[in-house]
Amino acid sequence: MTRQKREQLRLRCEHELFERVLPFWERYSPDPVHGGHFNNLDRDGTVYDTTKHIWLQARQVWMFSKLYRMVEARPAWRSIAESGMNFLINHALRPDGRVYFSLACDGRPIYQQRKIFTECFYAMALSEYGRAIDHAAHVHEAARRVEQIWDWAYDWSKVGRPALSGAAPAQMLAVPMMLLNLIDEVMVDTDCSSEINDCFKRIRLHVQGNHTFEFISLDGRQLDGPNGRLMNPGHVIEAGWFIQHIASRTQDLSMTALAQTMIRDAQAFGWDQQHGGLYYFVDAEGFSPVQLEWSMKLWWPHSEALYAHLLNYASTGDPDDLASFQKIDTYISDHFIDLEHGEWYGYCDREGRLTHRFKGGPYKGCFHVPRTLWLCWQLLGQWPESSH
Amino acid sequence: MTRQKREQLRLRCEHELFERVLPFWERYSPDPVHGGHFNNLDRDGTVYDTTKHIWLQARQVWMFSKLYRMVEARPAWRSIAESGMNFLINHALRPDGRVYFSLACDGRPIYQQRKIFTECFYAMALSEYGRAIDHAAHVHEAARRVEQIWDWAYDWSKVGRPALSGAAPAQMLAVPMMLLNLIDEVMVDTDCSSEINDCFKRIRLHVQGNHTFEFISLDGRQLDGPNGRLMNPGHVIEAGWFIQHIASRTQDLSMTALAQTMIRDAQAFGWDQQHGGLYYFVDAEGFSPVQLEWSMKLWWPHSEALYAHLLNYASTGDPDDLASFQKIDTYISDHFIDLEHGEWYGYCDREGRLTHRFKGGPYKGCFHVPRTLWLCWQLLGQWPESSH
Repeated sequence: MTRQKREQLRLRCEHELFERVLPFWERYSPDPVHGGHFNNLDRDGTVYDTTKHIWLQARQVWMFSKLYRMVEARPAWRSIAESGMNFLINHALRPDGRVYFSLACDGRPIYQQRKIFTECFYAMALSEYGRAIDHAAHVHEAARRVEQIWDWAYDWSKVGRPALSGAAPAQMLAVPMMLLNLIDEVMVDTDCSSEINDCFKRIRLHVQGNHTFEFISLDGRQLDGPNGRLMNPGHVIEAGWFIQHIASRTQDLSMTALAQTMIRDAQAFGWDQQHGGLYYFVDAEGFSPVQLEWSMKLWWPHSEALYAHLLNYASTGDPDDLASFQKIDTYISDHFIDLEHGEWYGYCDREGRLTHRFKGGPYKGCFHVPRTLWLCWQLLGQWPESSH
Repeated sequence: MTRQKREQLRLRCEHELFERVLPFWERYSPDPVHGGHFNNLDRDGTVYDTTKHIWLQARQVWMFSKLYRMVEARPAWRSIAESGMNFLINHALRPDGRVYFSLACDGRPIYQQRKIFTECFYAMALSEYGRAIDHAAHVHEAARRVEQIWDWAYDWSKVGRPALSGAAPAQMLAVPMMLLNLIDEVMVDTDCSSEINDCFKRIRLHVQGNHTFEFISLDGRQLDGPNGRLMNPGHVIEAGWFIQHIASRTQDLSMTALAQTMIRDAQAFGWDQQHGGLYYFVDAEGFSPVQLEWSMKLWWPHSEALYAHLLNYASTGDPDDLASFQKIDTYISDHFIDLEHGEWYGYCDREGRLTHRFKGGPYKGCFHVPRTLWLCWQLLGQWPESSH
């Protein structure tokens, strides 16, 4: 990619991020009555559900805190982060350290998952917000919470999920990849080399030839049944760049290389040769995945892939990585970008037809799209000297 | 419909049920090693997952017991029912009366839902199997279990689902309709008029004009948000014929009329005018439902509608009911029937393209298809004298 093309692309990311994506959330998400943010926003920003989903509350706090600290100390961004963080602190926490999954707009709890991800996103929000406003107590508290999450991470009976004897002991890719991201985001000033190595070791178990499986036995054997054959290309691609960020911190060249390969292989096995786009789920042996939505094309595997392929290309200069980036970029432009109201659509069917018009929902908020645009914009502005 | 057309249709149902649907399950589902049945069967009957999902184990026992008692005392059918019932009795029960949601093929438990439906299907299986083999203790035990379910039905905190303060108190259509079905199936010899009236009263709350909502407040107000606007046409149509079966027992003409209207209105609001087929979920105000699979066309709303429209037509003689029946019948023939291997496919996208090739999965087994074919076949053979 020529310097000029890179600069064009950087300006396109900049415009998309600062003029069309962030303003959507700045304009439509704040709850002026109870504080915090609405995440269930229709195409034009209309609030179609006042439920506040905590994955997304926390992620929005993280995003605006990050931009405030790394890009520009805009008071409006700080204020959005502050309103969200206060809402979370006041309403989302349980005394035992667990965090609710969803709250009513006034903060009363609606639902509690028997998983650990809400707790992870809470810790990320608290840590980044603490750094943004230079409040050390928040940063320390976030690190303490990550230690607690570590204790829960591989035994969900500790968060209320019964472990029954017929369920084959398994490890989800989602867990070590999430923990790596927490180390990268929260444990910035701590030596986590043994934790990092543990995550790397676990992730390696999931990679079998050119497939990366979502579930694997604890000793790295493929599990029976649909879970054992399940691949989630978006997860693999996201894990790929998480790993590279950490591996560059620890100078682990073998993990960098593995992560680059994971991204390329997931692009290959996840891409729909007939209709384009990355599948949500793939069965490694060609059975129909049992998930009803398996063949849908979701925004987030594509937004993750946009950055992951660019990161690969920045490091390798391989034209195949550039071609993958361009393929994903074109798919996004053709399917997810809404030129009229800003932000991206989230859900298409296999053929690429929009199935849902909303911009924010129970699992989509101010996170994947601005994060990837920020990461791409930042990488394009700090392109390695030696490079292409 | 002329007598001749009815007879043609009856023979078509008979052939589909006895030659093409039941043999699929007889041939491919039995587990010769551990007993019980595999429910996760690929297009051609291949077992792609040995997990046994208890909704479907119990429903298969119910179905074969029913056919053994009502159609023909075939030893093979009794043997299938017996193997499934023994497997359930030996492995699916917990000491507290709860029933597991899924088991490994050897019977070790995998997953427990915090809902009441596995318990409902277990009671139906036990009752019908007990009647089929003339074993009164099973029949009584099933009735006792239904009384326990009644105690849990409207307070799921009793089955482990936390009731949090921000969740608006609501009633799901699924509950009173399931209870009505239990009365019809299990409480055959008991006077349940007050329980029936309670279910009818609750169901009436869900019907607001020509919409029937899946969730409603306890005093019959529409709830805020996507759940409050959610309609599930298949559920409404299924509830419609459950109500008619019970209302004919109690001679409740107003509920019969309401049920007929519910079925017609659900056909109207649930039908995809552009591509045909019944949607899985519809938002009453035209927002995108948050369920990713909302616009998919599933086999069971169509199989339920096949019988429900025929039942309406048998009672009313209205050509519109016959037209609805024919529309559904055509959609099923064009999309779900597999002439090569038998049973029906389960899942199409909005445009009617098959998305999943399997015949049995975690929520699809030997139940909706044979039940509707048996009900239609039976109704066509006992067509009301006065009728059309």
